[in-house]
Amino acid sequence: MADQQPLDASKLTCTYTSNPQEVPSKAALRNGSETICTDHMITASWKAGAGWSAPELKPFGPLGLLPSASCLHYAYECFEGLKAYRGEDGKLRMFRTDRNTRRFLMSAGRISLPQFDPDELEKLIHKLVSVEGSKWLPQDRAGDFLYVRPTMIGTDSQLGVTTPREALLYIIIGYTPRVDTPVGGKRLLTSPDDMVRSWVGGFGYAKVGANYGPSVLANQEAIRQGYHQILWLYGTEGFCTEAGGSNFFVLWKRKDGKKELMTAPLDDQLILDGVTRRSCIELARERLKDEIEVTERKFTIEDLQEAAAENRLIESFAAGTAVSFDTSSGMILDADDSKWFITPISQIHHRGKDINIPTGPDGRPAEITGKIKGWLGDMMYGRAQHEWVTEIPEKS
Amino acid sequence: MADQQPLDASKLTCTYTSNPQEVPSKAALRNGSETICTDHMITASWKAGAGWSAPELKPFGPLGLLPSASCLHYAYECFEGLKAYRGEDGKLRMFRTDRNTRRFLMSAGRISLPQFDPDELEKLIHKLVSVEGSKWLPQDRAGDFLYVRPTMIGTDSQLGVTTPREALLYIIIGYTPRVDTPVGGKRLLTSPDDMVRSWVGGFGYAKVGANYGPSVLANQEAIRQGYHQILWLYGTEGFCTEAGGSNFFVLWKRKDGKKELMTAPLDDQLILDGVTRRSCIELARERLKDEIEVTERKFTIEDLQEAAAENRLIESFAAGTAVSFDTSSGMILDADDSKWFITPISQIHHRGKDINIPTGPDGRPAEITGKIKGWLGDMMYGRAQHEWVTEIPEKS
Repeated sequence: MADQQPLDASKLTCTYTSNPQEVPSKAALRNGSETICTDHMITASWKAGAGWSAPELKPFGPLGLLPSASCLHYAYECFEGLKAYRGEDGKLRMFRTDRNTRRFLMSAGRISLPQFDPDELEKLIHKLVSVEGSKWLPQDRAGDFLYVRPTMIGTDSQLGVTTPREALLYIIIGYTPRVDTPVGGKRLLTSPDDMVRSWVGGFGYAKVGANYGPSVLANQEAIRQGYHQILWLYGTEGFCTEAGGSNFFVLWKRKDGKKELMTAPLDDQLILDGVTRRSCIELARERLKDEIEVTERKFTIEDLQEAAAENRLIESFAAGTAVSFDTSSGMILDADDSKWFITPISQIHHRGKDINIPTGPDGRPAEITGKIKGWLGDMMYGRAQHEWVTEIPEKS
Repeated sequence: MADQQPLDASKLTCTYTSNPQEVPSKAALRNGSETICTDHMITASWKAGAGWSAPELKPFGPLGLLPSASCLHYAYECFEGLKAYRGEDGKLRMFRTDRNTRRFLMSAGRISLPQFDPDELEKLIHKLVSVEGSKWLPQDRAGDFLYVRPTMIGTDSQLGVTTPREALLYIIIGYTPRVDTPVGGKRLLTSPDDMVRSWVGGFGYAKVGANYGPSVLANQEAIRQGYHQILWLYGTEGFCTEAGGSNFFVLWKRKDGKKELMTAPLDDQLILDGVTRRSCIELARERLKDEIEVTERKFTIEDLQEAAAENRLIESFAAGTAVSFDTSSGMILDADDSKWFITPISQIHHRGKDINIPTGPDGRPAEITGKIKGWLGDMMYGRAQHEWVTEIPEKS
């Protein structure tokens, strides 16, 4: 391995587009289902034995993959999703990029894609955001964000099922304009008995393509029935795991009278180690310790049904850095103000019965959900300083 | 749906390459890990609302996918693998194409890709084979085959996890020259406790990319330890399911003295409904009914250990239409004569102990394995007429 070139952000070459796009209007995007990407992307290719090429910042465009590329047959693909935020002070910021780059490295390993130094990837992500920020997230869009998508795919022409010998790492940015959408708590439908998202011994903890496409049938059925997302249950016990592609939190009063904020644990590797999830846990443990116990632990849908019957459910929310909560219908259903990362859950439908969960007025976040969302939003949008946040200098 | 254009093979347009490749020599391919494809491919694109485009036969080449194409993020991809055989009478044949096209349709539905008439796909497959056969599988290569790979991918630029609104169906042909490889029974390593290939409620029965990439880590570990493939176990009971990407058969003497040929069942949707698997079952039920009971049923690794201790294991084989049994090491490990579809299993290693299984001399197929392989091979290579086989007329 010693002769393999490492991924090295200092070798980045930049070729700027001579054909810049116009930033689409809100109206143009509202009913369109296509994701529009910004003018540039960063790519770096890898070959077994040689290692990583010098990264290139270049115009966004087609990849030139052969139809026999291994990513198109065997799901050799993993990704990350993170955001760049335009602060109310006009500055551009990112949130815990190091968490995403480290998870990306883990995901790559799980799907037999090559390794790299995550700090180099972080530099490349910040570079692309610094190039695109002023045009695609201008200072007059304070409180808005861009969606950044690092991706890795197997690119070798290979119809045998074997470890990829060529790969491409790339970073693109999706343009997601601020859209005013209905506020209100989201409603979840529990997963059907014959559909399981992930399983012990599988790969539910890795952000690999193989976790997403197969889950869409169930999500579409939930939407057809008028719900926003699936609440994925696991096992005959019906353990609550994830809500769609987001982590799922419940605040309740335990039978011993103690208030507890709980979410599914990581140790059985069923769920994604979400950056927003971790941040919620850490903040709540630090700032709410006098009033709430914060736990990562198993709990079942029956636990929630029982608590609802006894009026012990206090709040619930989904946490994640999705593009949006639901794009399937062409709508962008971001909570409140399109800065969706913490969304109140108002109802869970399970086998013919509703579990109702309190929210604030009009389905807005109730007390604790709102506090946590506020703390995170303050960091992201520059209203509060915190070590989790990095200011991104901008190319003028 | 009424205004959607169906997939229609009669609308095929043909554009032949003006830049034909030279057929690579055996030596050039032997140590190369890349799959070389033939000169042409067939493609048809689909859009929600519009349906299928007229299929095109055209030169093999890059697809022009955007980096935001949904197949590269969410594993919207499914495929089939089947072969075109050059008979000893000089004729070109395919085997049960209708089984593959119907399974492809099922896989597409599981991964939220569009539907089509499988008979139209069959016509397109046979057309491409008829165009490529005389050059890439010439009459002097009797007993050899080409590997045909129908594929479908989601192509819309979409970073939200939602049903694809654009897709591409394509057919390519991998050139896999006859290679003389060591004969001998294959050795399997049972899957580790912390790795599960598929699960009840998952998608192990569909030929989707999401089943393959995630299994490669375990396969690589098996190869590193000197085995040929993983034998995937399921559940605490250790039910035997698949051997790598192949179906797994055991012939044993039951405790009641009856000879039984058994393979895992389809009803829990853990395994692929293999075309070779089904053909083995049907032929054995028809032609060996006086001597052997053929069952699709659950059996455990402990059942096999006990039977080995009591000398009741008679034969075992893997059945499938893979490119090759193992390309990970750069070797093409086809059984016997590179016409791999039935491969004897000589040993299973489970948690530190070997289970040895009889084979014929030098690890060649023993009696029953050899009979079944012979019957199938006779059909594929034109030594026996059968309704499962279709002669492909050739473009001169």
